[in-house]
Amino acid sequence: MTGRAICLLSGGLDSTTCLGIARDEGRECYCLSFDYGQRHTAELAAAARVAESLGAIEHRIVRFDLREFGGSALTSDLDVPKDRAAAQMATGIPVTYVPARNTIFLSFALAYAEVRKASEIFIGVNAIDYSGYPDCRPEFIQAFENMARLATKASVEGNGRITIRTPLIAMSKADIVRRACELGLDLALTSTCYDPDPEGRPCERCDACLLRCKGFQEAGIPDPLVT
Amino acid sequence: MTGRAICLLSGGLDSTTCLGIARDEGRECYCLSFDYGQRHTAELAAAARVAESLGAIEHRIVRFDLREFGGSALTSDLDVPKDRAAAQMATGIPVTYVPARNTIFLSFALAYAEVRKASEIFIGVNAIDYSGYPDCRPEFIQAFENMARLATKASVEGNGRITIRTPLIAMSKADIVRRACELGLDLALTSTCYDPDPEGRPCERCDACLLRCKGFQEAGIPDPLVT
Repeated sequence: MTGRAICLLSGGLDSTTCLGIARDEGRECYCLSFDYGQRHTAELAAAARVAESLGAIEHRIVRFDLREFGGSALTSDLDVPKDRAAAQMATGIPVTYVPARNTIFLSFALAYAEVRKASEIFIGVNAIDYSGYPDCRPEFIQAFENMARLATKASVEGNGRITIRTPLIAMSKADIVRRACELGLDLALTSTCYDPDPEGRPCERCDACLLRCKGFQEAGIPDPLVT
Repeated sequence: MTGRAICLLSGGLDSTTCLGIARDEGRECYCLSFDYGQRHTAELAAAARVAESLGAIEHRIVRFDLREFGGSALTSDLDVPKDRAAAQMATGIPVTYVPARNTIFLSFALAYAEVRKASEIFIGVNAIDYSGYPDCRPEFIQAFENMARLATKASVEGNGRITIRTPLIAMSKADIVRRACELGLDLALTSTCYDPDPEGRPCERCDACLLRCKGFQEAGIPDPLVT
C-alpha cells in the first residue's frame, strides 16, 4: 500500500465528495478527468478547481472523442431530457447514458494507477439516487476489479493489487450532500448539469440537476450553485 | 446474434489474421484502431490498408494520448530493446509493455459494440509466442468478458451478450502465418515493427520483428516485408 490513489473527478457533486473522502483517509490523490466530446465541458473547469482546492498531487485530463461512435445525448445532437419526474428517471436507461463510459474511464485510471504505483482507484458511482446506468452497479464494479487484478504488470509480478473504492455507492444524494458538508468541501466549485449555459450555470431541469436539487432539499442544505 | 463483430486491428500480422478469421466465419466486421501516441504510427496506415482489403464495413480510429502517463518504451523516449534472444523475451515484462493497453482497447471496443449492436469482439492476442504481456493471458480475457457482460445497456435489458473472441490465443506464430496464408491474406499490407524507419520499413531487430521472423521461418514461408 503506497497511500496513493487515483481519483476519477468529473467536477460534479459525487466525484468531489469521493475525492474529499479519499483525502480524509490520508491518501495522496492523483486526479483524472476526461474530455470525451461531452457537451458539458464546463465540468472540466470545475474538476480543475476542485482538484486544486483539495490538494491533489496531480490532475491529468485524458482527451478522446466518443462522438466518433455516437449513441448518447451527452455526446451527440440528441436533446438532453428535461423536467423528468423521479419515477421516469427510475424507468429504463436514459439517452444520456454513454456506452461503456465507466469501463473506459476505469481502464484509463488503471493505466494511470500502474504508472504511478497507486493501489486504489476511487470512483464516485452511486447505485441509489442514480439514473439507471448499468456501469454504476456494485456487481459491475466488482467484475471490473476482478479483471483489473489480472490486467497489470503488477498482477503478474505479484507486487500490486488494485482496489476499486466506491465510498458513495450505497449513499443517497442527501447523504452525499451531508458528507460533503461534514468534510468542509466547497460545493460552489462543482458543476453537475448535463446542459449548462455558456457561462457554466446549471439548467436546473436535466436529470443531473434534478437529482442534485433533491439531494440538497432532503439534506436541508442550500445549494450554493442555485441562487 | 447479429453477425456483427468489432475487430481490433493494429495492422500487424496477428490482428490481420484475426480479422481474416472473423470474415471467414461470415461476420460483418467493424474495425477499430488506436492512435495513442505510439512511436510506430506506420501501423495505422497498415490497418487502413488491411481493413479495406478485407472488406470491413467501417474502420474507426480512436485517438488518445497515453504519453500523458508515460511508463512504456512504445509511448516515451525509452529505447526499444533490440536483438533480444527468445529466452530474454520470455523473462519478465519488457519496457514495450503499455500499461493497461488491452484493457483500454477492449473498453473502446465494448462501447463501439454497444453502439453498433455487435455481439462479438475479436482481438488477436496470443499467449504462446508473445512478449509476456499480462493482458494477453486467457484468464485476463475471461475476466474482461465477465465484466463486459455487466457493463452495458444490453446487459441490463437482457437482449445482448458480448463475447470476446480470441482465435489466435493458443496458436504459435508459425501457426498464425500458416493460417493467414490459408485464408489468402496479403501479409505485405501489414506492419509489425515497434520501431520502423520513416518509410515504415521494419527494423528486423525489435521483439516484434524477431517474433514475426521466427514465425515465418518455422512455417517455411518467406515474409513479403523482408527483402
